[in-house]
Amino acid sequence: MRSIDLNADLGEGFGPWRMGADESLLPLLSSANIACGFHAGDSSIMDRTIRTAIRLGVDIGAHVGYPDLQGFGRRPMQIESGELAAMVIYQLGALGGMARAAGGQMTHMSFHGALGNRIAADAALADALLQAVAAYDAGLIISSSPSAAMVTAAAMHGLRLRTTFLADRACDREGLLVPRSRPGAVIHDPRQVAARVCQLLAEGTVTSIEGERLAIAADSILVHGDTEGALDLARHIRETIRQAGVRVQPLSQLEH
Amino acid sequence: MRSIDLNADLGEGFGPWRMGADESLLPLLSSANIACGFHAGDSSIMDRTIRTAIRLGVDIGAHVGYPDLQGFGRRPMQIESGELAAMVIYQLGALGGMARAAGGQMTHMSFHGALGNRIAADAALADALLQAVAAYDAGLIISSSPSAAMVTAAAMHGLRLRTTFLADRACDREGLLVPRSRPGAVIHDPRQVAARVCQLLAEGTVTSIEGERLAIAADSILVHGDTEGALDLARHIRETIRQAGVRVQPLSQLEH
Amino acid sequence: MRSIDLNADLGEGFGPWRMGADESLLPLLSSANIACGFHAGDSSIMDRTIRTAIRLGVDIGAHVGYPDLQGFGRRPMQIESGELAAMVIYQLGALGGMARAAGGQMTHMSFHGALGNRIAADAALADALLQAVAAYDAGLIISSSPSAAMVTAAAMHGLRLRTTFLADRACDREGLLVPRSRPGAVIHDPRQVAARVCQLLAEGTVTSIEGERLAIAADSILVHGDTEGALDLARHIRETIRQAGVRVQPLSQLEH
Amino acid sequence: MRSIDLNADLGEGFGPWRMGADESLLPLLSSANIACGFHAGDSSIMDRTIRTAIRLGVDIGAHVGYPDLQGFGRRPMQIESGELAAMVIYQLGALGGMARAAGGQMTHMSFHGALGNRIAADAALADALLQAVAAYDAGLIISSSPSAAMVTAAAMHGLRLRTTFLADRACDREGLLVPRSRPGAVIHDPRQVAARVCQLLAEGTVTSIEGERLAIAADSILVHGDTEGALDLARHIRETIRQAGVRVQPLSQLEH
Repeated sequence: MRSIDLNADLGEGFGPWRMGADESLLPLLSSANIACGFHAGDSSIMDRTIRTAIRLGVDIGAHVGYPDLQGFGRRPMQIESGELAAMVIYQLGALGGMARAAGGQMTHMSFHGALGNRIAADAALADALLQAVAAYDAGLIISSSPSAAMVTAAAMHGLRLRTTFLADRACDREGLLVPRSRPGAVIHDPRQVAARVCQLLAEGTVTSIEGERLAIAADSILVHGDTEGALDLARHIRETIRQAGVRVQPLSQLEH
Repeated sequence: MRSIDLNADLGEGFGPWRMGADESLLPLLSSANIACGFHAGDSSIMDRTIRTAIRLGVDIGAHVGYPDLQGFGRRPMQIESGELAAMVIYQLGALGGMARAAGGQMTHMSFHGALGNRIAADAALADALLQAVAAYDAGLIISSSPSAAMVTAAAMHGLRLRTTFLADRACDREGLLVPRSRPGAVIHDPRQVAARVCQLLAEGTVTSIEGERLAIAADSILVHGDTEGALDLARHIRETIRQAGVRVQPLSQLEH
Repeated sequence: MRSIDLNADLGEGFGPWRMGADESLLPLLSSANIACGFHAGDSSIMDRTIRTAIRLGVDIGAHVGYPDLQGFGRRPMQIESGELAAMVIYQLGALGGMARAAGGQMTHMSFHGALGNRIAADAALADALLQAVAAYDAGLIISSSPSAAMVTAAAMHGLRLRTTFLADRACDREGLLVPRSRPGAVIHDPRQVAARVCQLLAEGTVTSIEGERLAIAADSILVHGDTEGALDLARHIRETIRQAGVRVQPLSQLEH
Repeated sequence: MRSIDLNADLGEGFGPWRMGADESLLPLLSSANIACGFHAGDSSIMDRTIRTAIRLGVDIGAHVGYPDLQGFGRRPMQIESGELAAMVIYQLGALGGMARAAGGQMTHMSFHGALGNRIAADAALADALLQAVAAYDAGLIISSSPSAAMVTAAAMHGLRLRTTFLADRACDREGLLVPRSRPGAVIHDPRQVAARVCQLLAEGTVTSIEGERLAIAADSILVHGDTEGALDLARHIRETIRQAGVRVQPLSQLEH
């Protein structure tokens, strides 16, 4: 691995409310997953985030979620897959259109929160939603944490899938994310987070919460922008990547 | 004039609620202005309307409004023009993206309700919003009732503007729509509406509410789909057009 | 049984959209369950419905649902019980306050759609939500289709529970509603619906979908206002009740 | 003047988003104006804020606004007065009901943002809305910055009106707030703000932006909770009041 993407979920404010330090974080990233107004974000915030990303050469992606601002897209909702597909395309179109009007291009997309959890575990839903995504733009890159359902569905519909490593989230021996509700799920110590990035870059492995060393492939490292110390952590990770002799590259320009 | 467009505002339901008889009306039209989820419509309704329009060869356009479902986009809202521009592009992108995913193309757009009234009368706003539209897609046709502000702004930004004749709405001696609040603003008698269409096609004129005959250009006739008898009226107008020896053609295929 | 309540879910429009024939239905009812703006309804519709109910001497109740207009409160949402309790009280307060400002009083409440299904089956949730209801107003009547969870929770918190009979919905041998997805769940034939009301009034029984005769208690008969022929059905049921020598009385004035 | 109220606008977050330091500010106040879910706030935030206020003996009031979360209720909307009255009662009922369920009582209300500006300047609207408020609860205190329209309407409908002094906002020689858009409208220097409070308590006057000394009556001092340094400012004002020998008392318990 000679290059890796560094990304974060951005544009997660709404109206007068802000979340995360987007302006400070953006220059450290190579790609941004931008909320599309369903679980967070609104047209003004999207526009501002897109224009900054374009100026900084940061890849623009859609962060697509459930229609639930109050619950921040984290509350499971039972929505039938045809309706969900329409919601996904609506959000992709909105963000893609705003990127185009600003002189840029949307190059990737990822699924947020409860929708992300559901699609990662539900092969039929992954198939239905990625079919819709491919119908919208077969060139769009899917950014996802490891999930067999997503890998299969992406392959089926001819979409390129890039795997994201959540540096501050523990995984189990299957490589799946430990749910936030379990102790140890979120790693708060920045040194520990950096050590995990080091190990990934050096060995291509991660140590599971059970203590086992797993081989993992990662095209991208995700930084959480809304936690305290996010900025320092992002700087630390970026420096760790540099010291490992790896280049930070946007998702659409990775060399492998 | 050898061809004219026949269009209507469609997809104006929301969630479980319906408005207008879209399914029956669509086969009579050549173009559809589809609500984009701000003043009406949601992703499922948009998807259904788009797919039917594609199947019937009806042009797909975005009907863009204020973010006000409860007020159906008819309540004036003071939103700064930069914020409005972002809202307009968001809606265009969403509808355009859904059309693309369904194998079609969005070819035109128009402004709804209180936003439509404001932009028709506010040259600076028309300029700002059409600049944004042109940045999104310089090939998009603007469908508008007569307005100097819109004509100027469209010309300035290289956008093609098509003028719509509201067959069931009275106009004053300036050619501007008589506000709904004034008596006589809405013409309910279908024979009278058809007579106005006849006169337009035969002479290129309309008789104002004051009784004066005005020369008007019209590329398109708008039918209101949410009023009682809309379907009969649409059939009647279509027949009137046929008898005048004029062809009904989608906005994007008009021969002039 | 010498008196029974006849009620319906009303005020289920939103903004410009209508659902059901509230104005025609209201004079036939003794109680109304009015949507509170979360799954349907808005402040203007609530106000209008409340004032008509007061004028006609119809009992006013809150119909409380999930915060999901697009899904009409029919999509299951995982919301934690403390958050749900706050949503329930918010809706009760809003409707109760509007009734009070109109010179009336809110006397009962019921749960709508997916929230209604969940609370009927989840004893812990029923307990949490009815505890909140009792804290708001211990005199409020709970209107519910048969459910052990609801009966227990109401008793625990000192709330009076009134059982509703859904005349046009089949039940199974446990007395629980057959889900809408199963064939035969909804009874469309008005004569059959009336026959079920007859049997209830004469024998205090209902015939389950399996063909067994079950004893049931019912304080109230629910008419669905949003289905075709609802008005005729309501008239028919009202006449059936009259012929059985039973009086139609609002929930708060039942004689037993 | 031997007692004065110290209040702030609270509960102005939404879903995952926070605004202001409610928890730290509340112990310094005697009254709180709590957003009701239209321009800010949601049922969970309302519940939390209400329960803290009750525990601390802080008066609970409704802060009522336009239905515009994205615009934070600051964008003028043309809504007809009957519809607005229904919206106001909906919000009062919701907050009042939640206060009641938490074992407390809503004792006052005020109007937020663009609605507040409009009602202060529009006598007919003030009359319509305060008539609705009085119909809901004739004992509710109206908290308002100085406005002849409000004073008249409150008197007409038998409502007690308490005047609020915005310590960090300049006023003109009429005593009206200088709009935020004008330079000098907001006073940022905490010492200057404290000096204005001193002058008010000592002399019952305020110096207008033109430099004239005006006599004003103030029952309450409003602290803005969402600005930087709000907490220090509140502490400073509270200390200033104490040194002037004046007691801080909730709106409902003022001694005059």
